[in-house]
Amino acid sequence: MAAKKVIYDTDPGVDDAMALIFLDAAPDVELVGITTVLGNHRIDTTTRNALFLKDYFNIAAPVAQGAGKPLVIDEGEPPVYVHGSNGLGDIPLPDIIRSKPHELPAHRFIIETVRANPHEISIVAVGRMTNLALALREDPEIAALVKEIVIMGGAFGYRGHGGNVTPVAEANIIGDPHAADEIFAASWPIVVVGLDVTQEAVVSLTYLEQLRDTAGRAGQFIWDISRFYENFYFQSTGLPGFPVHDSSAVGYLLDPTLFTTRAGPIRVVTEGIAIGQTIQMPNNRSFPPGNAWEGRPDHLVCIDSDPERFLKLYFDTVVAASRRDN
Amino acid sequence: MAAKKVIYDTDPGVDDAMALIFLDAAPDVELVGITTVLGNHRIDTTTRNALFLKDYFNIAAPVAQGAGKPLVIDEGEPPVYVHGSNGLGDIPLPDIIRSKPHELPAHRFIIETVRANPHEISIVAVGRMTNLALALREDPEIAALVKEIVIMGGAFGYRGHGGNVTPVAEANIIGDPHAADEIFAASWPIVVVGLDVTQEAVVSLTYLEQLRDTAGRAGQFIWDISRFYENFYFQSTGLPGFPVHDSSAVGYLLDPTLFTTRAGPIRVVTEGIAIGQTIQMPNNRSFPPGNAWEGRPDHLVCIDSDPERFLKLYFDTVVAASRRDN
Repeated sequence: MAAKKVIYDTDPGVDDAMALIFLDAAPDVELVGITTVLGNHRIDTTTRNALFLKDYFNIAAPVAQGAGKPLVIDEGEPPVYVHGSNGLGDIPLPDIIRSKPHELPAHRFIIETVRANPHEISIVAVGRMTNLALALREDPEIAALVKEIVIMGGAFGYRGHGGNVTPVAEANIIGDPHAADEIFAASWPIVVVGLDVTQEAVVSLTYLEQLRDTAGRAGQFIWDISRFYENFYFQSTGLPGFPVHDSSAVGYLLDPTLFTTRAGPIRVVTEGIAIGQTIQMPNNRSFPPGNAWEGRPDHLVCIDSDPERFLKLYFDTVVAASRRDN
Repeated sequence: MAAKKVIYDTDPGVDDAMALIFLDAAPDVELVGITTVLGNHRIDTTTRNALFLKDYFNIAAPVAQGAGKPLVIDEGEPPVYVHGSNGLGDIPLPDIIRSKPHELPAHRFIIETVRANPHEISIVAVGRMTNLALALREDPEIAALVKEIVIMGGAFGYRGHGGNVTPVAEANIIGDPHAADEIFAASWPIVVVGLDVTQEAVVSLTYLEQLRDTAGRAGQFIWDISRFYENFYFQSTGLPGFPVHDSSAVGYLLDPTLFTTRAGPIRVVTEGIAIGQTIQMPNNRSFPPGNAWEGRPDHLVCIDSDPERFLKLYFDTVVAASRRDN
């Protein structure tokens, strides 16, 4: 089987870095580009971090810098209390990054890569949806040329999980709700891996220690960047360990059987107290006509998962890659 | 134990009538008033139906007519496809109703009854929240004088149930979202029995047949009014039987141990595609400051229930009352 060609749209970010390591380790993935967006930090910092990760792990794919502000709303303050003041858990970073960004902005990089590889590009989008919306605005025809889009974002009210910014809104989606509502309006194949399932894939301290002691340089790096992040989760939930949100989207890309999905059109709330909420109208239920979901294309939402099998896939993939590298 | 003094705020409505029969049958309830509101039908029809039910079941409590339109939004068309063109499943109704409405409008009746019985009145509200909001606007001090308010309404995203008008909005709340948001802003003890639990208490055909054959006049009446309603549910879900929404609120009033609740402030969305959604910020989770729930009082939301025990309570209560009446 040919490797999947993947663009990784990301805002590193601790769990973004963990997911990039997962993508880079997966033998059946060809990472063709990393595109950056604001979110876990400002755009200059997430781009710097992506370039640093490219260098640190000798990743061939170029890094294209993307949107520094959302389509409509203000960018807000970066959540340094989650990802640290440098976006990577405050590990020491080099003053000078060797790699430079690609000459194209992220949305143009996405358009050109998709057009050069019709029906072959999978996009794993784990930040705000701004780059995807800009690409779609500039070249709507790419919707028919993308193979699949796997999004980490949103919260659909399954399994008792709500949002993480408000009771109903998840950070990536509330960070640019207009962009998200635009991309869900397009007829391209989207799968949404939201908090409903990502909150259930929690890595324990033991898991992280074993990864550190088994997965070489990557394992040690994951341990180092996650000290700050783990502490944030412990302070806010009182529980050890943390969910590896973005890696769950990579998990879906590699093995969709890890998840149960439900089909139906998706809207994003762009105003009021529910701003940033993702709402699917499930196809297996009927509602009075004249509603806001009518005429919108179906997309898939993950409503259940097998977190143990997913966490084992992550572990085994990263460990196997570290052995190949040695 | 003294009987609970109850005002039943209602828009009959098939399941409203079933819940009224339940309230009337409960030995530890003293029904002190029935207040009507638009919803399952226009206000003149829901009031006519309440007066008819009062006569038919020889209920002593007066019927006070309430709001015929929501605070802000339009009243919309009555859902005659759910409750029939007469609001009671199209059973034959007498041309002339003996009882007349109380001289006070519903919201004034609520205020005066609460003030005359401080800390003694339970309000079971199973229609739009308009009467409660009008009472609160006119006399905010009643908030400290009401014993408890049990609401059938809303959907909080538990147990996989969404809304019934939109994927996130329930009919009673979307019918007057501004009124609902106002009553949740007040510091009176509210318990919300929403679709999360009411959708799980489904009566089967066998259950209804047994009730018809065991519970005398009330059992036959419930059977007759529910033929149309049952057919609506069968057409929309493909499943036999139907949920007895409003009766679940009475179930909470009679035996709160039937339900598991969660505390936290509640807001209602009053605009956009999520209009009518009820959103609780649960006290057991933390969110970034500056959100729309801050400074609002806690209320309880039912997040789980024991539907079998509840349905047995309904059955046994209605059957026992029918035997007392004979």
